[in-house]
Amino acid sequence: MHFVARVTTEGGPDFVATHERIAVFDNDGTLWTEQPYYNQLAFALDRVKELAPAHPEWQEQQPFKGVLAGDPNAVAQSGEPGLIALLAATHMGNTTDEFAAIVSRWIGSARHPRFERPYTELVYQPMLELIGYLRASGFKIFIVSGGGVEFMRPWSERVYGVPPENVVGSRARVKYELQNGKPVLQRLAAVDLVDDKAGKPVGIHQVIGRRPIAAFGNSDGDFEMLEWTTSGDGARFGLIVHHTDAEREFAYDRDAHVGRLSRALDEASKRGWVVADMKKDWAVVFPFQK
Amino acid sequence: MHFVARVTTEGGPDFVATHERIAVFDNDGTLWTEQPYYNQLAFALDRVKELAPAHPEWQEQQPFKGVLAGDPNAVAQSGEPGLIALLAATHMGNTTDEFAAIVSRWIGSARHPRFERPYTELVYQPMLELIGYLRASGFKIFIVSGGGVEFMRPWSERVYGVPPENVVGSRARVKYELQNGKPVLQRLAAVDLVDDKAGKPVGIHQVIGRRPIAAFGNSDGDFEMLEWTTSGDGARFGLIVHHTDAEREFAYDRDAHVGRLSRALDEASKRGWVVADMKKDWAVVFPFQK
Repeated sequence: MHFVARVTTEGGPDFVATHERIAVFDNDGTLWTEQPYYNQLAFALDRVKELAPAHPEWQEQQPFKGVLAGDPNAVAQSGEPGLIALLAATHMGNTTDEFAAIVSRWIGSARHPRFERPYTELVYQPMLELIGYLRASGFKIFIVSGGGVEFMRPWSERVYGVPPENVVGSRARVKYELQNGKPVLQRLAAVDLVDDKAGKPVGIHQVIGRRPIAAFGNSDGDFEMLEWTTSGDGARFGLIVHHTDAEREFAYDRDAHVGRLSRALDEASKRGWVVADMKKDWAVVFPFQK
Repeated sequence: MHFVARVTTEGGPDFVATHERIAVFDNDGTLWTEQPYYNQLAFALDRVKELAPAHPEWQEQQPFKGVLAGDPNAVAQSGEPGLIALLAATHMGNTTDEFAAIVSRWIGSARHPRFERPYTELVYQPMLELIGYLRASGFKIFIVSGGGVEFMRPWSERVYGVPPENVVGSRARVKYELQNGKPVLQRLAAVDLVDDKAGKPVGIHQVIGRRPIAAFGNSDGDFEMLEWTTSGDGARFGLIVHHTDAEREFAYDRDAHVGRLSRALDEASKRGWVVADMKKDWAVVFPFQK
């Protein structure tokens, strides 16, 4: 990458000191697959099934009824209130340690509906190589995702080499308290940050505290992160993963319900953002295809 | 430190992998001096003087009137409403870049009222050495302070070697927006996190995402951080800096208005927290005394 050469050439006009080489990556659709629906939604659906025996009322209540009947569209049809009810029932009311254990157990056993592999194998080989290349060039790698931060942290280090402290995401409010004399962080039924769209620069500021010099995304949810990153002074880099390969992965952009890409695609050229065409540019999509 | 030997001895029962060696340090009173009042309050008082020409009404309004009259007790007397008014007038309403520039300018020129030195020279030599020792032992060092995160980040890397992304602190809400076509993060007149007391484990969770194994504080504001850190499994370490040296620095604990230390001192022994007695244990307090 010409950009990396520019920022790492000591004495050059665009040189950036190691400690300021911050690169941010969206997760869903940028580092791992997000179709036919967010993997975190698959987690929520499975969690409903797991919790159902203790909730007989769900047999008659949407979106739970639809989930239990094996209808993945039930949630979509119940709209935002349904999604919030689903999130509250499956993501809240436990401690951070309990939730991390639930996520770890799920991610170790769940399989993607189409590829029938663990979700953590459905990561993009070219992006893993890109992360490795940037890391070797002195970059600090952060994930900045609309997905839940506590949904990613239990496995981000193992899968991407990105430790929990380098993961920024949407989050629930938590409360420090003693339970049976033991301190815990209890997850409350309240959203603390929606780390998407204009929330991404906010999340970056809260957790990282400086403006990245490189950003990688795939949807309009990444627009502001790309804009914030690439409008700074000096050499900047923005890249959009364009999902164009229905055969090896999925093909979607403007009309997608998940990972909609329209405005960012329209403005990419004007703003100097690179568009990676999955079908044309990627020799391999997933590591298991190597 | 026996603790460090335990967690770094490969194959030993208490070994902790490098990536999990997280140490958290309070800032005010733990890494730098916090008397006769928080350095950030000194910043606010100076900022009032700087902004006063544009605010003729402050000549008759407390706490501004008292500040402008050179009475450092004016703020204390105006209570919490006064403090909030002061914070709003001096800390809000600009962009994150503007605020960082204001802090950098101030920290480079302001002098401590007693020591007549830059605040960044009033850091504790033994704590700097401790940070260096832990870093050399594979620890990741984070600051977790009740002070404003944007007040610390502009100088934390230079002074402590702690980069902005490793600083957790209280913070204002920020909003991403375009100003004259340029993206900025605007600081709003609303508090997003009070990173003190039970807010410290919350801040740690939000930004770091895992429980530290070592914590360093000096006041009851650090109680929950110490409790959260040292109640985890395996080897843990907690330390309290006890300010006992009125001659070289300050002596205060139970009756202090700033940095009150009472409950944490009472429970230190029971909880296995080390109490460092500044007068007895520190050969040198500040680097310039070396």
